[in-house]
Amino acid sequence: VVRVLKAHLVMLVKQGLIGQDAGARCLEALRQVPSDLPLDPALEDVHMNLEAYVAERVGKEVGGQLNLGKSRNDQVAAALRMVVRDYLIREVFALCQLRSTLLDRAAEHLNSAMPGYTHLQPGQPTTLAHHLLAHHDALARDTGRLIEAYGRINLSPMGACALAGTTLPIDRELVARLLGFQGLVENSMDAVSSRDFALEVGSHMALTLLDLSRLAEELVLWSSPEFGFVELPDEYSSTSSIMPQKKNPVVPELVRAKAATALGHLVALYTLVKALPLTYNLDLQEGNGHLHSLLKAALESTKIMVPVIQGARFNTDKMASALDSGLTATDLADYLTLSYGIPFRQAHQLVSRLAAEADKAGKPLHEVAKSRLQGLLETALGRRVDIRWPRVLEVLNPVRSVSARRLVGGPSPEAVAEAIHHRRSLLEQDLSWAKGAQEALKEADHRLQGEVVKIIGGEKRG
Amino acid sequence: VVRVLKAHLVMLVKQGLIGQDAGARCLEALRQVPSDLPLDPALEDVHMNLEAYVAERVGKEVGGQLNLGKSRNDQVAAALRMVVRDYLIREVFALCQLRSTLLDRAAEHLNSAMPGYTHLQPGQPTTLAHHLLAHHDALARDTGRLIEAYGRINLSPMGACALAGTTLPIDRELVARLLGFQGLVENSMDAVSSRDFALEVGSHMALTLLDLSRLAEELVLWSSPEFGFVELPDEYSSTSSIMPQKKNPVVPELVRAKAATALGHLVALYTLVKALPLTYNLDLQEGNGHLHSLLKAALESTKIMVPVIQGARFNTDKMASALDSGLTATDLADYLTLSYGIPFRQAHQLVSRLAAEADKAGKPLHEVAKSRLQGLLETALGRRVDIRWPRVLEVLNPVRSVSARRLVGGPSPEAVAEAIHHRRSLLEQDLSWAKGAQEALKEADHRLQGEVVKIIGGEKRG
Amino acid sequence: VVRVLKAHLVMLVKQGLIGQDAGARCLEALRQVPSDLPLDPALEDVHMNLEAYVAERVGKEVGGQLNLGKSRNDQVAAALRMVVRDYLIREVFALCQLRSTLLDRAAEHLNSAMPGYTHLQPGQPTTLAHHLLAHHDALARDTGRLIEAYGRINLSPMGACALAGTTLPIDRELVARLLGFQGLVENSMDAVSSRDFALEVGSHMALTLLDLSRLAEELVLWSSPEFGFVELPDEYSSTSSIMPQKKNPVVPELVRAKAATALGHLVALYTLVKALPLTYNLDLQEGNGHLHSLLKAALESTKIMVPVIQGARFNTDKMASALDSGLTATDLADYLTLSYGIPFRQAHQLVSRLAAEADKAGKPLHEVAKSRLQGLLETALGRRVDIRWPRVLEVLNPVRSVSARRLVGGPSPEAVAEAIHHRRSLLEQDLSWAKGAQEALKEADHRLQGEVVKIIGGEKRG
Amino acid sequence: VVRVLKAHLVMLVKQGLIGQDAGARCLEALRQVPSDLPLDPALEDVHMNLEAYVAERVGKEVGGQLNLGKSRNDQVAAALRMVVRDYLIREVFALCQLRSTLLDRAAEHLNSAMPGYTHLQPGQPTTLAHHLLAHHDALARDTGRLIEAYGRINLSPMGACALAGTTLPIDRELVARLLGFQGLVENSMDAVSSRDFALEVGSHMALTLLDLSRLAEELVLWSSPEFGFVELPDEYSSTSSIMPQKKNPVVPELVRAKAATALGHLVALYTLVKALPLTYNLDLQEGNGHLHSLLKAALESTKIMVPVIQGARFNTDKMASALDSGLTATDLADYLTLSYGIPFRQAHQLVSRLAAEADKAGKPLHEVAKSRLQGLLETALGRRVDIRWPRVLEVLNPVRSVSARRLVGGPSPEAVAEAIHHRRSLLEQDLSWAKGAQEALKEADHRLQGEVVKIIGGEKRG
Repeated sequence: VVRVLKAHLVMLVKQGLIGQDAGARCLEALRQVPSDLPLDPALEDVHMNLEAYVAERVGKEVGGQLNLGKSRNDQVAAALRMVVRDYLIREVFALCQLRSTLLDRAAEHLNSAMPGYTHLQPGQPTTLAHHLLAHHDALARDTGRLIEAYGRINLSPMGACALAGTTLPIDRELVARLLGFQGLVENSMDAVSSRDFALEVGSHMALTLLDLSRLAEELVLWSSPEFGFVELPDEYSSTSSIMPQKKNPVVPELVRAKAATALGHLVALYTLVKALPLTYNLDLQEGNGHLHSLLKAALESTKIMVPVIQGARFNTDKMASALDSGLTATDLADYLTLSYGIPFRQAHQLVSRLAAEADKAGKPLHEVAKSRLQGLLETALGRRVDIRWPRVLEVLNPVRSVSARRLVGGPSPEAVAEAIHHRRSLLEQDLSWAKGAQEALKEADHRLQGEVVKIIGGEKRG
Repeated sequence: VVRVLKAHLVMLVKQGLIGQDAGARCLEALRQVPSDLPLDPALEDVHMNLEAYVAERVGKEVGGQLNLGKSRNDQVAAALRMVVRDYLIREVFALCQLRSTLLDRAAEHLNSAMPGYTHLQPGQPTTLAHHLLAHHDALARDTGRLIEAYGRINLSPMGACALAGTTLPIDRELVARLLGFQGLVENSMDAVSSRDFALEVGSHMALTLLDLSRLAEELVLWSSPEFGFVELPDEYSSTSSIMPQKKNPVVPELVRAKAATALGHLVALYTLVKALPLTYNLDLQEGNGHLHSLLKAALESTKIMVPVIQGARFNTDKMASALDSGLTATDLADYLTLSYGIPFRQAHQLVSRLAAEADKAGKPLHEVAKSRLQGLLETALGRRVDIRWPRVLEVLNPVRSVSARRLVGGPSPEAVAEAIHHRRSLLEQDLSWAKGAQEALKEADHRLQGEVVKIIGGEKRG
Repeated sequence: VVRVLKAHLVMLVKQGLIGQDAGARCLEALRQVPSDLPLDPALEDVHMNLEAYVAERVGKEVGGQLNLGKSRNDQVAAALRMVVRDYLIREVFALCQLRSTLLDRAAEHLNSAMPGYTHLQPGQPTTLAHHLLAHHDALARDTGRLIEAYGRINLSPMGACALAGTTLPIDRELVARLLGFQGLVENSMDAVSSRDFALEVGSHMALTLLDLSRLAEELVLWSSPEFGFVELPDEYSSTSSIMPQKKNPVVPELVRAKAATALGHLVALYTLVKALPLTYNLDLQEGNGHLHSLLKAALESTKIMVPVIQGARFNTDKMASALDSGLTATDLADYLTLSYGIPFRQAHQLVSRLAAEADKAGKPLHEVAKSRLQGLLETALGRRVDIRWPRVLEVLNPVRSVSARRLVGGPSPEAVAEAIHHRRSLLEQDLSWAKGAQEALKEADHRLQGEVVKIIGGEKRG
Repeated sequence: VVRVLKAHLVMLVKQGLIGQDAGARCLEALRQVPSDLPLDPALEDVHMNLEAYVAERVGKEVGGQLNLGKSRNDQVAAALRMVVRDYLIREVFALCQLRSTLLDRAAEHLNSAMPGYTHLQPGQPTTLAHHLLAHHDALARDTGRLIEAYGRINLSPMGACALAGTTLPIDRELVARLLGFQGLVENSMDAVSSRDFALEVGSHMALTLLDLSRLAEELVLWSSPEFGFVELPDEYSSTSSIMPQKKNPVVPELVRAKAATALGHLVALYTLVKALPLTYNLDLQEGNGHLHSLLKAALESTKIMVPVIQGARFNTDKMASALDSGLTATDLADYLTLSYGIPFRQAHQLVSRLAAEADKAGKPLHEVAKSRLQGLLETALGRRVDIRWPRVLEVLNPVRSVSARRLVGGPSPEAVAEAIHHRRSLLEQDLSWAKGAQEALKEADHRLQGEVVKIIGGEKRG
């Protein structure tokens, strides 16, 4: 907020709307605002407090000039956009770090076979690496959305004043530039009344939390002794002294809950704005707290998942033992079709029969296959066949099955290694976007400080 | 959905995974699927019904091949993405039409002065054109968001199968191309379990409805006899035969309500997906209806606002009479500061005093100014001044005040005319994006039909 | 709706506001309205269609009388309240049936020990019966809320007309009585504009779905092979022919999803009504679909859970094997405190140490206790002690531990049997409330038919 | 929370589970807990901090006893229920005060005629008193819901321990009684995992805010110069020094926004709990903040509306001038039907024609009636008629029309006066419920303090 006032003052001086002297005195006062300025609740908000602070130091006459060519409405909107853009950039950094962590852990587990689930039932064999990559890819899209939104967020509403601008010859572009904005929210009524920028970023961050909630849910599930696929680092679990085997996955539980929190704040924001006539209405003020809580929940949740994933000890033995040859029944049907020319439909029926027998007998599919496949296949084809048992066993082996899924996006170690490689370079791009955006803001701030110094110095020399 | 099956079959034939003959027979059967295929509820969903339809015609042996290298999970995701992308393109068209209408109406009303409101209190003078442009600009951002999202939506999940792809040598890119997708949702687990694409477009369309709800609210307010700023076309109002003066603004009321509907469906979608472990769970099926209702509400609301805005009769006299010189009090303070060198703060106090007297006396500000300004100003400055009365009256004239707000994004007729001009060219860009996207889908479909004909023909010749 | 018109007509005749003859003709026409009256969309809604239907049969002159002393606004509110009360009563019946089923299944499993979970980690030993009762009790509260709401729902808005009643001497109480309402929504503006009755019942039914979603979640979890605690009946699962061991718990997944659906509709309803000025606005019409979908989702979900629970095959062996003596560590600490006078804190530390050693060694707690307890205890107490081993083993036995939790509301078989007994009689009360409410509505309807017959007959005789 | 610990300790002593001495020392320590106990964030929550505080004072040995027969899970649930019941009672008090204010203001305005609106169009004539009563009645239902909920909220979960109770012979009823609870949440798993009590009260308070948002919306509308029906007290508006005629209705805007806030927190709470397996999961902790914010928003909004309504200056002249004789067109049709025997339909058409002519000519209906009614009526009836002009003018007079709406719940001054009288006695009942509930809690607390003193004293004497 202080920055907004400074930029506005610099512009007023440059446009000759206030004197160099008055400008310098106000800027000097603003430079001394302590970062922990105590707020007088009687003065409504931080904007009023700042103005009172300045007025006290430079006198009401001079301090009053601060309000030339601006109002609380455009200033509030500008300050909010600056808060949002900062969160956005920090979230992109946090997402990049989490994605990097997921890629690292995936790279360790290219060969860690495990069941992939549908309906929480094992469905097909996959690997932990492939599974972690699914989460990574969702977070990569989350990052992309934020980056694309930035251009719509990082625009200056300054100059819109109460709602219809001013008759004074102010320079909106200059203020924008000094504040690091990439352009203007042109229409002055739109500038003070629109909050879609907040809802857009809020929606994106809520989606990020939604994706995190699915990862968190799996960590909770996998931490149960029944699954036993993962043990979370002690620092991110809570333990019971008397039941040391029990480690409550409290961090994932909290992250899961934060998705609900984000949705709640988003609903509040949306409902606030619904059917609000233009332009500024006080309802919008109530939205600031919701937005802030939402963005904070997303940022903190993203950050805390980094050490949780880094420190997770995956139990690959338990994962492997959750695989059974039933998962490769489809592979066997495919194999029979391609190798023996039996129509897919018939192959499918034949394997179903084997699987049913295996299920009934409580035996693995490959054992039942051994004793029954040849007979069933010969009956189906009406001719003698030569079963290549090593090949059949290979087909039924879940680990082999994974290796054979070499298609783009599939779980084979080669495909996943390739995917990780590719993702690392995309990650690099996102990261350098974030660095660039951050750098641009710093430069703008630097420029602003420079102008401030020039005006103060000029006055002192004068 | 039929298209997805066709593309998949073409690929299977091209990869040699099923015979030309079997492929041709299946494709032939798919071509004959009536658009109103009666659904047997015992068969769960449209996918199962389609497969049963084909199997009935070509026999179970051949029909069964359809399932080689795909599953319902990737097929459902592909079909949903195709529905979403179609809605998205149609919404962009509808938004462009509504924006064009708003620009047209704005162009008619460059000089129609009216109060701009904050807190539903007149705040500063503006024009109807400027006000309509504020709504236009919000809708322009809504369009931009959809266009940017398209690249994340229009990707093919086909080939992901149940969740881990297949061991068969399928060609995912070919299927994607034949279906008009611009690329793949690579990771196969991600491909079947993610629904962020639905939530992203859903959020954007909900935001569009939110913006429309604000426009609708103003139409409802302005239709009240108390405001009397607008009369909506009869076809979009409901009238009472016995009270002909009463025209209920039912269409804006409904559009306003649709924002609530959109939020509801969005909340349902989000809550469905929250904390859902990977990959496919049946919960996702429940989301399809919500998504469809949401997108439909947005599209229909956008479309119906076009003739409402086109046919609205604005009562510019009533608007003008709602202006009063109190709205230009700030202008007077600015003028005194710049012309007489009185500090802004003091000028502000002086004008406040005039305004308070005017309010108390129930007179317009300019009348009170006439009798009191000179005295107050001379006291304040401690010297005689020469008031240029014509200029002061001009400053206090709301219409003149509007003209003087020439800054970028301000309400002066020149600034607004310039803005309209600029927006027309941006609109043209968005429109040509939509045409391009539509064209690309048509071409892909054409290509697919070509391949189908080739296979069926080849078989017939053979 | 037809019923509302009939009751209104009977009243008009009785009050002498329309003639016996005209009344009889209208009533006759209404009696012939086919239940599947085809709706002409040009006539806005079902009310207008009905009036057109009657007017066509008895002429516009007579048919027009229908509108004397009522309007669409009160009629719509009355019809909606009648829909809501019907759903409410049916939901109470469905809840009673589901509760009865849960009590039956609980009664079968008084001794089926299993772990109770916190954070999805086994926390303390309990029984399946006790666990099912927890779900029962939530549903019992859901029932209670609906029953209490009924008195606020079942009130007649008829007579409020458009918003301010009428100058005609109508009899509001008579219409209310004929429609089975227990009283009036007195204030006529309130009567046509309030929808809190819909939101109240909607909230209650959404809460019911929330409770069902938790039960459903457990069924999904327990159906996974990792838990393996339950096998759902085939009719309520979907199976894969090629993976017969895989049974997807689709019904619980759908019920879980319906909680999201309910929340979405509730949010839409709430947001619709928010900040709506009195009295009727068309926005309210949009709410009807949301309310209907919400109530239907709750009713169907409640009903379908009955056969799911009835047919669930619980695997008590798997449940028992998920218990381990770590769950009774706290019991041992309690025992040591009470039996050996060692302060609770110290007892707790001692047992923690045993548990840590057991965890490290991968041995059950009771084995480690056997070798180490005596030494540790003697060190702690500084004297020799006599360990009663049979008692210690008993204390550490989870099944025994359950039996010892005899407190009110605890899991011991006696406490649970007692609880079931008590709940059966409360269930009986709720059920007889539902029967009474249903009966009262039937009687009112009977009375209305009687009056209709009397008027039509009187006219015919005349 | 301190109270919960005290009650638990008293019970432990009474049951002989800990010694009188140890109990007395712990209780003494608890009595000294400062109300602003500084919280050490390392200790997770206030419960842990309290236990550490006690342990520090009485030693770990004795302090550890505190945990005998309870856990954080039941204690958290108990504390939350106590918070909710306090809010509930305070909200009932606040609602009673606001209702009383509305009744007072209504009593002042029995004869203040104004238009009642549908679709924000004047629909029928009513009075300000009748209008205020509509809001009152909604708030009366809100009060009723809270009172009914109390019995489900005010139950003790203590004794449920972690989830399955304890093997110790604790006395749950005694703890409940000492804490002012009316009974137990019996089932121990239900006791620690259910949060429907929070959602129930949360829903009710959100509904209250929804009702307040409609009242607030009307205050905002009515404050606009276009309506001009009300002027809010300065203390609850914000004014602009330079535009003294402008008074922003900031308090109603904020209350309107709080309805959005309440919905957001409710959605968060619901989504948190959705599909959460039993029993306690950390997600529930995230709900506490949402619940607290929701209840606080409702309570503060209810309270602040009291002085706003008390201080509102209604402009009854402006209201009266918004009435026009078009509003009584229906009355005229009714009159013609009843007095001249012309069928209602025809009367309706005839009046419609008059109204259309009046609208076209820009004249009031009664003027046009004067010149045209006789002719039209005679044509319609085919005979000469005698128009009783004074009666017709009376019928068309909106103020007279209001007086004639004498039906129960109608706007006639008599009907409204009667309604106010009746509501005052219902209000008295609700108020005395609130006093009774508050009294009962105080008594319980008194009893608890008595027992504490007895134990501490007993020990000191001992």
